[in-house]
Amino acid sequence: MSGFVSFVGSGPGDPDLLTLKAVARLRAAEVVLFDDLSAAAMLGHTGRGAELVAVGKRAGRPSPRQDHVSRLLVDYAMDGARVVRLKSGDPGLFGRLEEEIVACRAAGIGFEIVPGVSSASAAAAAAGIPLTRRLSARRVQFLTGHDVRGALPEGMRLEALADPEATTVVFMPRRTFAALAAQLIAAGLPPDTPALLAENISHPDQRMLWSSVGGLREMLAEAGGTGAPTLILYGPLAEGAG
Amino acid sequence: MSGFVSFVGSGPGDPDLLTLKAVARLRAAEVVLFDDLSAAAMLGHTGRGAELVAVGKRAGRPSPRQDHVSRLLVDYAMDGARVVRLKSGDPGLFGRLEEEIVACRAAGIGFEIVPGVSSASAAAAAAGIPLTRRLSARRVQFLTGHDVRGALPEGMRLEALADPEATTVVFMPRRTFAALAAQLIAAGLPPDTPALLAENISHPDQRMLWSSVGGLREMLAEAGGTGAPTLILYGPLAEGAG
Repeated sequence: MSGFVSFVGSGPGDPDLLTLKAVARLRAAEVVLFDDLSAAAMLGHTGRGAELVAVGKRAGRPSPRQDHVSRLLVDYAMDGARVVRLKSGDPGLFGRLEEEIVACRAAGIGFEIVPGVSSASAAAAAAGIPLTRRLSARRVQFLTGHDVRGALPEGMRLEALADPEATTVVFMPRRTFAALAAQLIAAGLPPDTPALLAENISHPDQRMLWSSVGGLREMLAEAGGTGAPTLILYGPLAEGAG
Repeated sequence: MSGFVSFVGSGPGDPDLLTLKAVARLRAAEVVLFDDLSAAAMLGHTGRGAELVAVGKRAGRPSPRQDHVSRLLVDYAMDGARVVRLKSGDPGLFGRLEEEIVACRAAGIGFEIVPGVSSASAAAAAAGIPLTRRLSARRVQFLTGHDVRGALPEGMRLEALADPEATTVVFMPRRTFAALAAQLIAAGLPPDTPALLAENISHPDQRMLWSSVGGLREMLAEAGGTGAPTLILYGPLAEGAG
């Protein structure tokens, strides 16, 4: 009898932002595959006999091991195990979920997706602001700063990204935001557009930096990446908490 | 001594998609303000003496009572109560959060935002698909089909919304999607672009309809709105579960 895979969103990092369903799946899991991005605290919900397998992807680095992760998933499930694949934030957002689903399908393994709190929602919440605003930000968009090559995605629509009436959240922005900001400003986005750099969201060492698109462009052109999970929000952001 | 307001995302409807933090806030609440959109099941987490106040906003109708809700929030908090303002999905996404924050600030009431699982994430999860795809959907955008006037927002960037390389999620689309789809198709989006209508996501009576942008345009031009909470996803959607 073959097993089952639950792709479970672990939320942004704070273990209290796990859903009840995520906790239930962790409790029932025989095997849990997790990334470095997932806090160890969440694994405390697993039962005594559960096998915990670190698959070691890290933010800001292309993962050469995606095939390896998919194979592990399938192998454990083919052995009949109830497998949880823990993914930070919401698993459907920049989580390389599709590759693992395709592998399950190809092997005839049943699966489910348990959605989670996205780090974008958590960053805005921590800043005390909404992602959308009734009159000035009626569209919100999420973009990765980091495609499979580690570069800005090709074929980006700058008209979409330089829209002053949208809130934009860039995932994994550290290495590429200076270049993106230059393109946005060239496309007409005012350099003084409010921007927020949010690091280690919902972790004890969370850090928020209010700035502007032009300001972050300068800062990130100079500073190296810290490796900490980071988001950048920009657009007609509401007045924040601090 | 003045109270405190927690704006708490209740997730898409399934009480198991509440976060541990949301449950903790409900348990500690002295007053809970909730919309019709929030399932009654979640209120079971409140303590015996908590005052539960329905503020009665409904999907698809402009709320004439936003001021009333803000006033209630502030009044309860000024009386010293620990108030939870429960909002469906993630409170920062089309949740009219800002108006209530502004009211708290004006009255000097402390507040926090507890992010939740968005209905967009839950709809994709229920369909067995990711919101982003590594090669074909590297941007995801959320739009409301329903501004304060009950119409499509003005000043939408069709270049952004007709991008065949983005996944778009339209919140509250029933009354306006036929008109939006006509504009998208005129702007170059192929009518056979995959689209998914998701109704009552994560509720027992959840319904999913796979179609295309052109197909939903025809269907919604004819059918009246059911009033059920609905999302439409369109774009280069991955192959779904059924």
